[in-house]
This record gives sequence, C-alpha cells and structure tokens, in this order.
Amino acid sequence: MSPIAVASVDARTGTPGDDVARETSAAEVAGLSATAASATAWLVAQGREGRARLLDALADGLEARREEIVSVADRESALGADRLAGELGRTCFQLRFMGKVAQEGSYLDVSIEHAGEGPIGPRPDLRRINLPLGPVAVFGASNFPLAFSVPGGDTASALAAGCPVIVKAHTSHAGTSVLVNDIFQDVLRGFGAPEGVFALVFGRAAGTSLVADPNITAVGFTGSVAGGRALFNAASCRDVPIPFYGELGSVNPLVVTDAAAQARAQDIGSGIAGSMTLGTGQFCTKPGLFLVPDTEAGTQTVDAIVGSLQAVAPGYMLNDGIRDSFQSGTAGVAELDDVTVLYLGASSDRQVAPVLVEISPRTLAGENKLLITDEHFGPFGVVIRYGSLEELAYVLAVFPPALTGTVHTTGGSDPQLPQIVAELEKRSGRIVFNGYPTGVAVSWSMHHGGQYPAATSTSTSVGANAIRRWLRAVAYQDAPPESLPRELRDAPMPGLTRRIDGVLQIG
Amino acid sequence: MSPIAVASVDARTGTPGDDVARETSAAEVAGLSATAASATAWLVAQGREGRARLLDALADGLEARREEIVSVADRESALGADRLAGELGRTCFQLRFMGKVAQEGSYLDVSIEHAGEGPIGPRPDLRRINLPLGPVAVFGASNFPLAFSVPGGDTASALAAGCPVIVKAHTSHAGTSVLVNDIFQDVLRGFGAPEGVFALVFGRAAGTSLVADPNITAVGFTGSVAGGRALFNAASCRDVPIPFYGELGSVNPLVVTDAAAQARAQDIGSGIAGSMTLGTGQFCTKPGLFLVPDTEAGTQTVDAIVGSLQAVAPGYMLNDGIRDSFQSGTAGVAELDDVTVLYLGASSDRQVAPVLVEISPRTLAGENKLLITDEHFGPFGVVIRYGSLEELAYVLAVFPPALTGTVHTTGGSDPQLPQIVAELEKRSGRIVFNGYPTGVAVSWSMHHGGQYPAATSTSTSVGANAIRRWLRAVAYQDAPPESLPRELRDAPMPGLTRRIDGVLQIG
Repeated sequence: MSPIAVASVDARTGTPGDDVARETSAAEVAGLSATAASATAWLVAQGREGRARLLDALADGLEARREEIVSVADRESALGADRLAGELGRTCFQLRFMGKVAQEGSYLDVSIEHAGEGPIGPRPDLRRINLPLGPVAVFGASNFPLAFSVPGGDTASALAAGCPVIVKAHTSHAGTSVLVNDIFQDVLRGFGAPEGVFALVFGRAAGTSLVADPNITAVGFTGSVAGGRALFNAASCRDVPIPFYGELGSVNPLVVTDAAAQARAQDIGSGIAGSMTLGTGQFCTKPGLFLVPDTEAGTQTVDAIVGSLQAVAPGYMLNDGIRDSFQSGTAGVAELDDVTVLYLGASSDRQVAPVLVEISPRTLAGENKLLITDEHFGPFGVVIRYGSLEELAYVLAVFPPALTGTVHTTGGSDPQLPQIVAELEKRSGRIVFNGYPTGVAVSWSMHHGGQYPAATSTSTSVGANAIRRWLRAVAYQDAPPESLPRELRDAPMPGLTRRIDGVLQIG
Repeated sequence: MSPIAVASVDARTGTPGDDVARETSAAEVAGLSATAASATAWLVAQGREGRARLLDALADGLEARREEIVSVADRESALGADRLAGELGRTCFQLRFMGKVAQEGSYLDVSIEHAGEGPIGPRPDLRRINLPLGPVAVFGASNFPLAFSVPGGDTASALAAGCPVIVKAHTSHAGTSVLVNDIFQDVLRGFGAPEGVFALVFGRAAGTSLVADPNITAVGFTGSVAGGRALFNAASCRDVPIPFYGELGSVNPLVVTDAAAQARAQDIGSGIAGSMTLGTGQFCTKPGLFLVPDTEAGTQTVDAIVGSLQAVAPGYMLNDGIRDSFQSGTAGVAELDDVTVLYLGASSDRQVAPVLVEISPRTLAGENKLLITDEHFGPFGVVIRYGSLEELAYVLAVFPPALTGTVHTTGGSDPQLPQIVAELEKRSGRIVFNGYPTGVAVSWSMHHGGQYPAATSTSTSVGANAIRRWLRAVAYQDAPPESLPRELRDAPMPGLTRRIDGVLQIG
C-alpha cells in the first residue's frame, strides 16, 4: 500500500495544489520517537543559555523567510497577509520569549536545604530541581498556522524546557508546516544538533501512534473537543499514562452590566461585533455568549451589535470541513422554535457571514440546551438578556467553563460588578474587563487555559508558565557536589532565583 | 438493605472489634460533596493566615489526644507505639508546615504586569494568581494511618490551598480514622466553620462515587497499582476529567559501587537489611532491588545483608490481606527455577519474616520478568550482581521507574558514580546518596513522586510543593483594583514574593 499523499489546499478555492508530504507510517513514527529520545541528551547539554540561543536562531530563521511563509500560509488558511505577518511576529517573539524564560531559570524551582536538625529529627541535605520530561508530541491547530502550530507555543516552551518535539501537522496548512520544518531543520543543522530534536509527522493515524508511543512523555494539543477528548483518553489509557495538555473548546461569555450599557451601548456593540467576527470568528477566545441586561440600555446594546454585524463582509473559513460544520451547526440552532434570529448575513458560496441569535434563559432548561451551549467555531454568537444577577449566575453555570470571561462595566463602583466577577472567577481562565478576549498576550502573567473543556489540565499554553508543562522534579539527598546539576551547587548563581534553606533568594 | 458496618480490627490477632462506622451510601457521598462545595467560600475567606491558624489548631487537637490516637492506631496497624508516636509528630509538623507554606504565599505564583507597549503591540494590564480548585477527595493509605491518611499530607496541603477535603478512610484503620475525624470536627466547630470543610466516608463504593462526583475537583491517592489505576481511569473518563494524583507502587533500586563495597560492605549490608525490614517492609520507599558489583566486595555485601536479616524478628503486617499477598507473592518468586533464595526467615502463623532472593540479569529477559519486577509490599528484596555499568543500566531500565533511587559510593571521585547517577536521574523522583530511602523529610526541597507507576502525575505528595496539586490559575486583564485579589493589587505586600513586570521581587 503506497502512502497517502498530503496536498497543499487553497482555502479560498478549496482546490488541492501540489502534494507536499505523505502520511507518516506507524513504523516511521516509532523511529522518529526513538530518535527524539536519543536527541534529548544533546538538547539538555546545551543548557538554558544554549537553548535560548537556539530559540533565537529559529526565530531568525523564520523571519528571514517571512514573505514566503506568509504567502504559503495565506493561500492555505485564507487568513490574510496582514494577519499572518502579525502572527509570524508573535510566533518569533514567543520563541525568543521562551528562551528568556529558560535563561531566567525560576521555572526550575531550585530549592537547596542543607543538613540540620529539624523539629522531627535530623534532616539530610536535600536539593530539588525540575528536569525536562523527554520527547513530547505537539498537535498543530488549524486556526493559527504559526502561533499554535509547528513553530507555536508548545514547540517553543518544550524546546526551552529541553524536550525534543514531534509535531503532528494540521493538514489544513500542510505546505506551511513543511516549510517551517525545513527552516527549523536548517537552523538545527547549523547548531550541530543530532537528528531528532525536532520532527514533523502527517496523518491522523500518525497522531494516534505518536500519543501511544512509549518514547513520548507528554502531549500538547489545540483543537476540537471531539478530536482532543479522544486523544486525551488515549494518553490516559496507555500502560504508562502521560500528561495531555489539551485546549479543546470554549464558548466565551461576555457580560454587560446595566451601567455599562447605559454609558456606552454603541461602543460595546461594535466591539462585540468586531471581536466575534475577527478572523471570521475562528479564535478559541472568540466571545460567543453575550449577556446583556433586560433593560432599555440592553436593547440598545443588542441593536448596536446587530448594526455593526451588518457591516461585516462574509469571510473565507480555514477549510471546507470547518465551513460545512459552521453552516450546518448554526442553521440547526437558527431553526429551533425557541431561538430568535437577530442577524443572519448572506453567505456566498464559499464565504460565510456572521450569525447572531437570542434565547431566553428558560431555553437552557429545555431539550435544545446542548445545541446552544456547544461551541460553534466561526462568527456565531448567542445573546441572552438577564433580568437579575441570579438569572445571570444561572446562565453562566449552564454553559461549560471557558478560556475567558469578559465583563463590561463602569468600574469599581458598578454595583453589579463584584458578583459578576465572582461568577466569572469560578469558570474562566482569564477575566477581561472592558475589553475583548480575542487578544492573548505572550507574557509572564498570561494564563491561557481553564477548566474542562476549555482545557484538560490546570496548565497554560501561552506565556511563561507554559514551560512547566514539560517538567518533572528530582530531589538529591546528600549528594556530593560533583553529582549535582550546576544550579543545585552551593556556588552563587548570579541572576538565578533559588530557595535556600526555605527562603527565596534572588541570585 | 441496611448499611454495611465497618469494624475496628486488631492487626495482631485479626479479630474484629466494635463496629465504628458504616459504609457511606452513594446518596450520602453526593450530599457530602455538595456540602463541601458550599463550604469552599468559607475556607477561601479565611485567607492564608486564617488557614494557617486552622492547620495549627488541627495539629494541636491531634496532640492533645496523642495517647488515645497512638493506642487505637497501634491496635489497628501493629506498627508499634513508638513508630506511631513519631508518625503523629510528623503529621502535626506537616499540618503546621503546610500552613507556613500558605502564609509564605509564593505558591500563588503572583505576577503583575502593567499595561505598556510590547514588541508586538500594546499590552494590557495583566495579573495572574493561583486559586483553589474546590472540594478534593483523598484516599488514605494503609501503611501510614496518620501521615498518609485522614490527617495526612494531602489533607494538609489541600486545606492550606483552600480546598475542602473528603477522605475515603482505609478500613484497615477505621477506628483511627473516626477518632481523627471527630477531633477535626471539634476543631472546625471551634473555628465557626460551616459543615463540609472536612468529611470522612467509608467503603469502596463510596470511594468510587466520590471520584465520579461532579463537585469533586481533584483526587489524592496513595495505595496499590491495581486500586489506584482503576480510580485514575475513572477520574480520567469522567465527562469532566479531573486530576488524579496517585502514588501507586515502587520497587526502589539501591546500587552499590565496587569502591563502596570495598570500603564498607558490612555497614551497607546491615543498612540495607534495616531499611528493607523497617515497619515490616511496609514503606512505599522500601528499597527492593539491590544492585551489587559482581566482585569479591559485592559478595561480602550480599553476605552482610543476609547476616543482618538473620537477626530480624518476624513482624505483624497491617492486615491479613496484605500478609496473604506478601506470602503468596514471595513464595511464587522463590519457587521460580532461575531464582536463588538467599534468605527465607521462619514466619510464625501471623508474623512474617524477611525474604531475599537473587537473580541474574538474564532472568529479566525471560518469561518470569513481571513476577520479579512487581512490587512485593513487605520485607522482600531482590539482589542482582552487575558485571558492568552497561549491565547495570540494562537492569535499571527493565524495572519500572521508582519513587527513589539510591547509590552507595565513595563520593565524587568514584569512577562509577556519574553514569549511575545519570541512570537513576532518568527514572527516580529522589536520588539518595550513601543513605536509605525509607525516611521522607517534610520540607521545601522534598520531591515524593516519580514517573508511572511511582506516581500518576508529575507532582509531589510530600513537601511544600504538594500545595500545587490543588490550584488553578486565573489572569485578570485591565481589572479595576476593587475586583482584584488583595495579592494582585499594586499596594506593597510585605513578605510576599511577586513577579512585577517580569522580575521576581521579594516583598
């Protein structure tokens, strides 16, 4: 049986172009995973400084071929050259940022305790540090062909930690994946890296083989609930289960207080329409549930959303499967008896327009609940008017937890704010005030995760703490200095924060 | 159907005494979990200082009834009054220590980033902190009726984090569990706590219900591979999967270098015998695999182990089921053709003596491999002589990863040491030099965990970092100060380490 070819598909026309790869066989996955395991020692031996230099060089490599990458990614994703140039910038920043996180070193959680008498007897000399897990698998997402795909956040944080990476490419941008992999392999060769520090596989079966491979120590995934949950189950059911860091789906609520609606209904309405339709609504953080007060100001806000949506042109989606799902899913919701269609733009044959519906809180107690609370990936939103904070809390609790929760408010004196924040805290990874959740900063404070199904773990996929996905701790008891990692020895380590005899000290 | 009674059983005689509890029904588990959820707000509202005071008071409560607790626990576990008095001291220290970890606050991972211009555009004001997950389930272990049971490490770290706790009692020490729960409830009433901050359930079915309950947000477990893996699978297969922090089983290797054997065969041999038989071998960290050089000094070491074992009196085990498993499991190994019995002490009717066998590395390639590499809970050990470091690495790789790995060496100049440490690092949660793994310090540097099956997660169950099991992060974007947790506001927080604009600062 000859291997199945993988073509580069034009997202705007749906036309398959050249074959750029072929699906990876199970035997090839096993070989790549074993090679990755044997490359771990090299990556660890580079040290934190060496890995930071490698990440800088990978970013340089991408930037040197910016135009080519943007062109291929635009053809395959239809996201537009400007957006993709921005995404490339973000991706390169993220690679370099994770190198800085490695250099800074506090992720090692170094703790040195000298031997002594403790309250329950003598204590040995005990020193702990975080070590890299080993080779990890990363599943690229369709909607960020760079920032959450081959050169994306999971790749950056895993390499920073010292873990070789095997990416399961998303076939929706196969050519982009191959191009980025070629660039990465060139850079790695320039560093004298052995085979196996980075690799790319294609095909659903290869992804399944990867998650099952005994050399793979953890998985990073961004995608749908259906696919992600199946892989989470596979990772958990291995003889040796491994962590599965999945970001699966999120209906992101956005609450407008009555005071905020009174103060700026028009601004909020146009902001909502912009965030909901950014990138044709294909963001994990797209706001999808709009809770507005059941007041005159609330009606003005809803009118403003609808008015702004009317000005939004239809857009191409990432691929035909996503478009078909969006059209059938939203049509199914719009047809329901207890659903009011507020806006249903005219879709062209291959481009989709936004869809906005309204339901009453009572609908959530009915049999159509799941159709409405499911994520509809694309420019779709649900409006619900709340009559009281109790009703608001009820609605928030019926929807699953989310990556983000947003509130529009007049500020600290807004009487509705404390209870709304308390409700959002219970079920959001990030709470946005007077803004829109579609921007996700790459920084020390970012948390991009949340309770299931927003994420399958308590970790973050974006920001400095993402490096913690790929670590395990080891403690050394009464070790001679020669046997200790450099960071655990008594000698000063300028710049490294360490806990010494129970007290954090900035080196 | 009337509920099944749970008796307090005398471990030395096997005689059931009074019924002290009854198995908890599924409906009762659901009620307790809902009550725990409603108690979360109170526990969070106490703040880190208040929870530290609560943990101190719980320790005070246990100490005030030390003699009674030790007496009941000794009758139920046969571990001896001295050991149990020590364990109570450790348990109280651990409760107070986790309170100090809460007070210290670095576990919150506070990060404050002010709005500004970033390299990829304007950054919002972004602040992150760790919040408690909510009610957690804890499964008590048989072998530490205090330190890893009702008032044990998981209870201490979860309460410190702000999570209500429901313990599934181990029926092997039912009376001890009831007594400790009574003491805890008294202390909680004294604090004005609502119902639900702490609860106790009995019975295997109740444990299963607990793991499946939608109000339970995480599970801590110490026990066997069979029971633990089933619960891990259940936690992972829920509609909403939850973290399962299991410590399942560990055959802990101990390597003797040739130089160490030459220098102190007798000391090492008697130390091994002592650690292997401590508490009748019923420690998760019991060394169970002894790798000695295939040299004259290695033979002297083995002789010294055997000589020391001859002086070890038979001991009672925790319960009849554990004793039966030990006797049948070790008899099965001793009968194998390719196994040499080095020592097989005379067991009395109800007490067991140590068992030490030797195999050659070749045996591990044969069909009996799994019988030998399985953990035999009790005073059992396997000796393997290695002819080279390659052979040593092979043997270590055949056995599953472990909580600990120990090496006896002459120190940093020992030529075999670097490669041995490198092998142990790959598959140990803690590496012990010239000591024995059975002592587990409660401290900032401890890591008590490891790769599967030693643990089902990358976290630790002992030491300061155990608090991290019970947390999830939330980021606040452009929040008014009134909506932020105290620790995230701009005002100074004396004593609290925070990351401010990317730089760790000690408050």
